[in-house]
Amino acid sequence: MLYGIHDIRVEERPVPAPAPDEVLIRVASVGTCGSDVHYYEHGRIGDFVVEQPLVLGHEPSGVVVARGKDARRHEIGARVALEPGVPCSVCAECKAGRYNLCPRMRFFGTPPIDGAFCEYVVLREDFAHPVPDALSDDAAGLLEPLSVGVWASRKSRVAPGSRVLITGAGPIGLVATQTARAFGASEVVVTDVNPRRLQVAEELGATATIDVSRESLADAGFEPDVLLECSGVPAAAGQAIRTVARAGRVVLIGMGGDEIPLPLAHVQNFELEVTGTFRYANTWPTAIALAAGGEVDLDRLVTHRFGLDEVEQALTIAGKDDSVIKAVVRA
Amino acid sequence: MLYGIHDIRVEERPVPAPAPDEVLIRVASVGTCGSDVHYYEHGRIGDFVVEQPLVLGHEPSGVVVARGKDARRHEIGARVALEPGVPCSVCAECKAGRYNLCPRMRFFGTPPIDGAFCEYVVLREDFAHPVPDALSDDAAGLLEPLSVGVWASRKSRVAPGSRVLITGAGPIGLVATQTARAFGASEVVVTDVNPRRLQVAEELGATATIDVSRESLADAGFEPDVLLECSGVPAAAGQAIRTVARAGRVVLIGMGGDEIPLPLAHVQNFELEVTGTFRYANTWPTAIALAAGGEVDLDRLVTHRFGLDEVEQALTIAGKDDSVIKAVVRA
Amino acid sequence: MLYGIHDIRVEERPVPAPAPDEVLIRVASVGTCGSDVHYYEHGRIGDFVVEQPLVLGHEPSGVVVARGKDARRHEIGARVALEPGVPCSVCAECKAGRYNLCPRMRFFGTPPIDGAFCEYVVLREDFAHPVPDALSDDAAGLLEPLSVGVWASRKSRVAPGSRVLITGAGPIGLVATQTARAFGASEVVVTDVNPRRLQVAEELGATATIDVSRESLADAGFEPDVLLECSGVPAAAGQAIRTVARAGRVVLIGMGGDEIPLPLAHVQNFELEVTGTFRYANTWPTAIALAAGGEVDLDRLVTHRFGLDEVEQALTIAGKDDSVIKAVVRA
Amino acid sequence: MLYGIHDIRVEERPVPAPAPDEVLIRVASVGTCGSDVHYYEHGRIGDFVVEQPLVLGHEPSGVVVARGKDARRHEIGARVALEPGVPCSVCAECKAGRYNLCPRMRFFGTPPIDGAFCEYVVLREDFAHPVPDALSDDAAGLLEPLSVGVWASRKSRVAPGSRVLITGAGPIGLVATQTARAFGASEVVVTDVNPRRLQVAEELGATATIDVSRESLADAGFEPDVLLECSGVPAAAGQAIRTVARAGRVVLIGMGGDEIPLPLAHVQNFELEVTGTFRYANTWPTAIALAAGGEVDLDRLVTHRFGLDEVEQALTIAGKDDSVIKAVVRA
Repeated sequence: MLYGIHDIRVEERPVPAPAPDEVLIRVASVGTCGSDVHYYEHGRIGDFVVEQPLVLGHEPSGVVVARGKDARRHEIGARVALEPGVPCSVCAECKAGRYNLCPRMRFFGTPPIDGAFCEYVVLREDFAHPVPDALSDDAAGLLEPLSVGVWASRKSRVAPGSRVLITGAGPIGLVATQTARAFGASEVVVTDVNPRRLQVAEELGATATIDVSRESLADAGFEPDVLLECSGVPAAAGQAIRTVARAGRVVLIGMGGDEIPLPLAHVQNFELEVTGTFRYANTWPTAIALAAGGEVDLDRLVTHRFGLDEVEQALTIAGKDDSVIKAVVRA
Repeated sequence: MLYGIHDIRVEERPVPAPAPDEVLIRVASVGTCGSDVHYYEHGRIGDFVVEQPLVLGHEPSGVVVARGKDARRHEIGARVALEPGVPCSVCAECKAGRYNLCPRMRFFGTPPIDGAFCEYVVLREDFAHPVPDALSDDAAGLLEPLSVGVWASRKSRVAPGSRVLITGAGPIGLVATQTARAFGASEVVVTDVNPRRLQVAEELGATATIDVSRESLADAGFEPDVLLECSGVPAAAGQAIRTVARAGRVVLIGMGGDEIPLPLAHVQNFELEVTGTFRYANTWPTAIALAAGGEVDLDRLVTHRFGLDEVEQALTIAGKDDSVIKAVVRA
Repeated sequence: MLYGIHDIRVEERPVPAPAPDEVLIRVASVGTCGSDVHYYEHGRIGDFVVEQPLVLGHEPSGVVVARGKDARRHEIGARVALEPGVPCSVCAECKAGRYNLCPRMRFFGTPPIDGAFCEYVVLREDFAHPVPDALSDDAAGLLEPLSVGVWASRKSRVAPGSRVLITGAGPIGLVATQTARAFGASEVVVTDVNPRRLQVAEELGATATIDVSRESLADAGFEPDVLLECSGVPAAAGQAIRTVARAGRVVLIGMGGDEIPLPLAHVQNFELEVTGTFRYANTWPTAIALAAGGEVDLDRLVTHRFGLDEVEQALTIAGKDDSVIKAVVRA
Repeated sequence: MLYGIHDIRVEERPVPAPAPDEVLIRVASVGTCGSDVHYYEHGRIGDFVVEQPLVLGHEPSGVVVARGKDARRHEIGARVALEPGVPCSVCAECKAGRYNLCPRMRFFGTPPIDGAFCEYVVLREDFAHPVPDALSDDAAGLLEPLSVGVWASRKSRVAPGSRVLITGAGPIGLVATQTARAFGASEVVVTDVNPRRLQVAEELGATATIDVSRESLADAGFEPDVLLECSGVPAAAGQAIRTVARAGRVVLIGMGGDEIPLPLAHVQNFELEVTGTFRYANTWPTAIALAAGGEVDLDRLVTHRFGLDEVEQALTIAGKDDSVIKAVVRA
């Protein structure tokens, strides 16, 4: 449990009881995310502040061990991936199919909702997604970041023939690289300042990479149809937008900074569409199909593994060591 | 002809001969646009520089007086509205239906292409649109700015039930007000700092107005689905974007400034779609239907009229006197 | 209660108690629909069979008189329009924003779910929509058929400039006429064999009508962008589809017959989009805005009124007398 | 040249001269299509009747050997794939990006326009698409049928996770199989009555096949999101439509029969979208990317090769021998 900045304590807590439409899940694997690290280091993200002890972790997989009285979707023993945000299902956004924008969303590991760095969690049964044997426990947990990539590729309408620029080769940039390819993109160019990460991007399907510490993006001359901005660096985002082709789509995924300098004349003259992503909606079935079919490789992202009593080490190393792509916690 | 900054000279020039697919048109009425004023006052707009004498004017109507040998669409004597930009029709953008993004577009009154402040112009016959008797000559010319509003309403998917915010009640804001209503918007709120313009906005269909010199937009508490930004003031644009509701659409129409401060977290958390408009494509038939059907009132926008020998006065007053909505030049 | 074919009995039943997320509503007005008449005359519609006594009626308005313990949206005394189908909210269709396609939908007056020809009903609070004073009780009930028109206009992308053909001037054809106009259609041509209904269509916004008992549709020469098929006559549907212009949209609303003869070559050569509607999703806010703003006139549709003890007469006359547009039952 | 039914004659004709915007191409390879066979056997397809001697063939590749005076896109010697239909580029359909629906389309091998079973053809330069060395001459010609598959996959919005049913494993069914996979479909089920063709479908990416001479489609229990109907058999089309899932898309590609029996209630209750394809628009760049990237295999489709003087044999065998997938003619 996160008690405050750099203050995580392991505690015994009662096993939660599932509500009628929920299942109880024994956690198997949980990926660590940049937002977990951010809460650990800063105690807040924007308006979300850790005011009472909080369990982090929102990239979990596990096994169903009990069911609420109305829950019938899963058998006991079923392996599941957990979609970690449960919306109200009755507001205008939910009814319009945009449940990720639900103002009453309860999301794992976001104050005041506890996450999955623990042994047992409960979840509404329709947000537990059955996973095939082909997927490892770690991969099942990493369907969560994969969903971010699926969502971004959908929103930007990546399709066969698309030329895609991905700025930033962190975990999200690397899943975006894979989803862009899986959606049919013919060219996927990835930028970063870290050569090791760029090499992983090439392994995972990038058709070219640019080390922007050595070569400017503008000089590279690549004119993408789609920009998936994963760096979260405002100035880099602004420069990348200037390279996008006519009628191109820009999806701002990386967080960081309050404002981005939007190049007005370029957005107008080329009629670019610029949007951002907030989590995802209806992505798990697609993510499972891609991972099970081998179109994306999630296990390749796992570089470090920790036990449940080592969450603090996992968060510390994930925040400091750039050889970490994904550190997973095994419960 | 514009010879340079504040240097317009009236000249006799030969009547142009139509190419095989063109018609010769005797100009009847031409609206003055902010861009005409800008060329007159600054000699350039961005990368477009007046390097040789240029005829301005791109909001014309007229009468067909001769036809090229293959031109069969119009009878001699037909009244037409002129769509003032002719694309190449063979590039990838043209073939995709986005001819407004054609890199080889030839646009009236944009260097080095001459415009319509003159007696006769030639135009590819398919860009001359027949107008019904119900439309005055002035209104037929003002289908050009109306097209900007139609395009913006289309791109932002205004529909019955939409709540629309329009920032800026200049000529474009006033046509956008009318098109938003014609597309079915239930609420159209218009902002400006000029009470007289806000009053015109109300006459033309705004359901409410806000004088932002007196009341801040944020305080007004209006949460639009669609923002049509017509002010061209970067700071105002940034503030307006912050008011847009979840899954809302933002269209940046007003020009001005190199960059807009894009509120990143708001765009992401609410998954706003932000785009800009560059002229329009395939809008004249719709604009004609709206004007002929009385859904929009273009004549109401005409506040001043000048003769062809008074273009300089028209541009001068349009740039200085804020009682001017539209000054038209009658040829 | 409908006990069988032509067998309706008035009964006293206990007032239902609202579940925690429901409200109890005293019914004010309920429109009669062709499907009510069909159940009354045939005891079934397709696979839906009346096997136990059933309350019909699914076009109700009323007043909130009690709330379940978690229901907070409405004050006691609030006037509401009832959206008469409540989906499960957790299946894939619901989560995708297509709750009308929910396989577990519970819909008023569809076996075995009771409808609204009674004094009190309960409803999940988010399906009770507040109505402004401007709307009469009858109009508030008729937001249900209006929603059918809104949905069809949305699916067919009616917009300013659209030319729309509506086949059939029954209640649905007449709301479709109004919604097509409200969505901006420039031309709305309505066909029927009943001159009286065609006259009402003209009153409500049709720009032209065709009595297809006297003039064939093909001879009329109208080439619509959008066909809203409201007649339910397969042969008429097939003929109407043959008139649709390139890239046109066809929405099949009218029910009747198992199959429609789809003109294959025309659908292919003109790349028509053909779809059907099944009720509606997320339409009440738009329908309320249109009715409250005067864009559509629902009271004009009401031709006959009955008391709650006269449901049988209402259904009888609605099925036999073609002067009936809408018969409403006042509770 | 086709003089009449079963009457093809080889003739010497002058080499055509390119117009200013055209190139002269020496033909390398031309695929034979079912429509060529149909003209050869019946002298007509629907309203298109062979009234004067006609050169068939519309799946060509070749080499640029001369350029019109304004043609600058291609160097002499460039290998190109020919998009065989040239629209007017100025009508409403062309301007809207739907040039395949242009009423003035001039299409190779469609009366009265000559096709490519000859040594030299001229073509507007923007419809000659440069092909990379990775593509064989035969494959470059077969980008034409591949375009049909690309267009159908686009119109039906095939994407990762899609379950696709393809009825008919002829040449079009086989390219559709490949494009569906390239667009990311997770499941692609192909039906036919010919086991040999079904085996090829499996080689080319089908995840399952159904021999509908042995097992009924309904019994198979597959519920696709997308149906690509390639059989042209009306009854089969009607049955296949009944299997499509909620909100599914149906694209009618196969030609044959005047009408298809459209299952009305299923289309309505599941809100299916049914459309047809008429050729394609803007598909060559995507088709080239897919073929060059190895996502589709066009050479695998070529089962028979003929010389230019053997066109008659090619058409004869293509119409009779079901071991033929594609017979190509080498010029």
